Amino acid sequence: MEKRDLKRLRQEAEDIFRASLVPVDPHAAVKNFVRVDGPTLILGKEGQDKVKLDLSGFDRISLVGGGKATAPMAKAMEELLGEKIHTGLITVKYGFTEALHHTGIREAGHPVPDEQGIEGTRNILAFLEKADAKDLIFSLISGGGSALLCQPAAGITLSEKQALTRSLLECGASIDEINAVRKHISAAKGGQMARAAFPATVVNLMLSDVVGDKMDVIASGPFVPDTATFAQALEILEKYDLTAVSAEIYDHLQAGARGETDETPKAGDPIFERVFNFIIGSNIMALEAAEKRAKVLGYTPLILSSRIQGETRDVALFHTAILREILRTGKPIPAPACVISGGETTVTIRGEGVGGRNQEFGLAAAVDVADLAPRFVVLSGGTDGNDGPTEAAGAIVDPLTVSRGKEMGLEARAYLNNNDAYHFFEKTQELLMTGPTNTNVMDVRLMLVR
Amino acid sequence: MEKRDLKRLRQEAEDIFRASLVPVDPHAAVKNFVRVDGPTLILGKEGQDKVKLDLSGFDRISLVGGGKATAPMAKAMEELLGEKIHTGLITVKYGFTEALHHTGIREAGHPVPDEQGIEGTRNILAFLEKADAKDLIFSLISGGGSALLCQPAAGITLSEKQALTRSLLECGASIDEINAVRKHISAAKGGQMARAAFPATVVNLMLSDVVGDKMDVIASGPFVPDTATFAQALEILEKYDLTAVSAEIYDHLQAGARGETDETPKAGDPIFERVFNFIIGSNIMALEAAEKRAKVLGYTPLILSSRIQGETRDVALFHTAILREILRTGKPIPAPACVISGGETTVTIRGEGVGGRNQEFGLAAAVDVADLAPRFVVLSGGTDGNDGPTEAAGAIVDPLTVSRGKEMGLEARAYLNNNDAYHFFEKTQELLMTGPTNTNVMDVRLMLVR
Repeated sequence: MEKRDLKRLRQEAEDIFRASLVPVDPHAAVKNFVRVDGPTLILGKEGQDKVKLDLSGFDRISLVGGGKATAPMAKAMEELLGEKIHTGLITVKYGFTEALHHTGIREAGHPVPDEQGIEGTRNILAFLEKADAKDLIFSLISGGGSALLCQPAAGITLSEKQALTRSLLECGASIDEINAVRKHISAAKGGQMARAAFPATVVNLMLSDVVGDKMDVIASGPFVPDTATFAQALEILEKYDLTAVSAEIYDHLQAGARGETDETPKAGDPIFERVFNFIIGSNIMALEAAEKRAKVLGYTPLILSSRIQGETRDVALFHTAILREILRTGKPIPAPACVISGGETTVTIRGEGVGGRNQEFGLAAAVDVADLAPRFVVLSGGTDGNDGPTEAAGAIVDPLTVSRGKEMGLEARAYLNNNDAYHFFEKTQELLMTGPTNTNVMDVRLMLVR
Repeated sequence: MEKRDLKRLRQEAEDIFRASLVPVDPHAAVKNFVRVDGPTLILGKEGQDKVKLDLSGFDRISLVGGGKATAPMAKAMEELLGEKIHTGLITVKYGFTEALHHTGIREAGHPVPDEQGIEGTRNILAFLEKADAKDLIFSLISGGGSALLCQPAAGITLSEKQALTRSLLECGASIDEINAVRKHISAAKGGQMARAAFPATVVNLMLSDVVGDKMDVIASGPFVPDTATFAQALEILEKYDLTAVSAEIYDHLQAGARGETDETPKAGDPIFERVFNFIIGSNIMALEAAEKRAKVLGYTPLILSSRIQGETRDVALFHTAILREILRTGKPIPAPACVISGGETTVTIRGEGVGGRNQEFGLAAAVDVADLAPRFVVLSGGTDGNDGPTEAAGAIVDPLTVSRGKEMGLEARAYLNNNDAYHFFEKTQELLMTGPTNTNVMDVRLMLVR
């Protein structure tokens, strides 16, 4: 295979990656899921209608929500409903705005919540409390919603809440344990917005940035039944010996466990009867779009899983083990092959360089495959277009990547050990650049073999 | 799905695992690869003849070799050639013998080499040195061959060689670096048996216990061209500051680098002209047999890769991520599905329990899938029938494994953290027991979903 062919493979990988973003664009995801036909609101993708609502049965239609991608979602709703929108209250990250006509946008802090976020959440909760059975409320949730829709429970300060989350992380508490505690020291999370909105009808549209699309985890599930209790949250605090972190939090959880505070609403609670939760964009949708595009380009596609987690370098080696098998025996699929995977990995930082999980994945894969024939490329990209603190979405590598670096005096393994993939790929010109995409359904990885 | 169905899935998983062992049985692997048709020796699997040799062109046919599975391989050769065998010299691990008629078996130390192994290797080398162009020599190599076919280069003692290997491991030297050094302080490894045998014809039959079936790594490649040089071995010693570990080794490598000692033979060396190296049993063969059997049982099989390495728990989570995708979306393959993978993982031991990589894989998978519907089982087994220091080959788990343990007062996660999978599965009766299989082509993992 010629170098020219590798160039073509790189172009096709980028083409497939861009195709994966199309259905998970926040604006498109809303338009694909919500249609208005006369007085009827149809929810569900084309050909898979899930719920129909008669709009004439409602006095008011409103929008609430929060997340990094919520502004373009609101724009799509405005295009669908226009002046029918009575009230709109959304919170987005600073700078993530759109020109909207019927919706108030508040910009707030992310990933660290600030007073703007709390104020916005308080306003949304107050609005939901006033809603009645004649209200139809759309909630628009996307990644970042947990920080942007943030209000500590009464008597607890934001800094106490943050200090506890940090302590839980340091103690090695599981993500489920941390979520259980956080929902019980919050006024909005864990289904509490659904309780505030009752008896209104709520249509909660979510763009999922969570592995496995757990609805109670996306933005901490403001409209989704909670599974944990005050008693469990208290136990977790005691298990990790964190009762001294904040007297207010300890008192609050103890009062809750004694039944003096309302428990977060659970599955089966009648308040959820008129709440419809839908995931309108997710990693698997991106992977399926990649699968479709790969087929058009003549590849046999194989989606491994949208749920890949774990240490990035280990995950990279799992992928290249599959790549080597394709090259040697044509298993699991024969070339021309396009192996597709998604999810979100982690990087244990040991060096002092610049990079992100997708660039690290690319460099780890490149180091491993430097002995192989130049018949393939590997792409890893964040669907948000921003990998780590860089302006790149990720990287595209091939078996010549390591030697390409060597010719420029760059030792690939040394850059990998220093978590400095960005500076390696910046020089070898192997960064994947998309610009901000406005969406986030985690990562897409591709291995193309000709 | 009923518990009865899980029982059936378990039986089918065990059935498929046993089917995977059939073609890699050492005796069967030789019989499938070597046939005698009158005066003609045919090498290659049925329908894929690779080499034909006219036996009448040789004065003598002999057997040499070493490895844990070498005795049944020699038995198969005796059944094929009988009294035609002139000399037979093989070395096996203590206890791994067979009743042979024309072959001398020596038992020796493994994994730690001993004087018996050195003596056996010296005898084989002396025999090979005497061979001429009228000799046909079969070499029978299997896992363990590197320790069993062990002779330090002149002037170096076994304990010096072992001390250096330990030091290299401790320094974090790569496996390629360790092999480069070891081949240059040995009298047999790195193609040196081929040099000794020249100008005889050598047919080297290997049962591969190495990820990727690298022939120069299997038993350190006594009949395979080496890729490293004395100069490189010396550089590695200097790089890790290990020149002081043994003055004899340092002197030997320096002399070699100065050209005073014969370099290990390299690809293209005429001594390899009459040397035929074949892998007759490997992990992918086991996986392909599993694939075939799974199809017969009505599953859609998918071989992921025979080259999976890495930390066992991480590898387990990669597998369960694929399992979850199958359950949710029918990707990469729809149920009834049988996902198959091979290779060999590692376990970083942090606890004080008893187990092996396959049992650890099973327990890590079981802990992760305890929330899922009982529609699947996961099997991980060592093809040698001995996982770690236990008499089990591995384990078979399902989504009820954790609760099964809980009912008996066993906390699965605690057993996993203590690397004590054996004692967990011993009580839940989920060990996979095959007894010794006489083969070793690493591990086979199966995920069966109905």
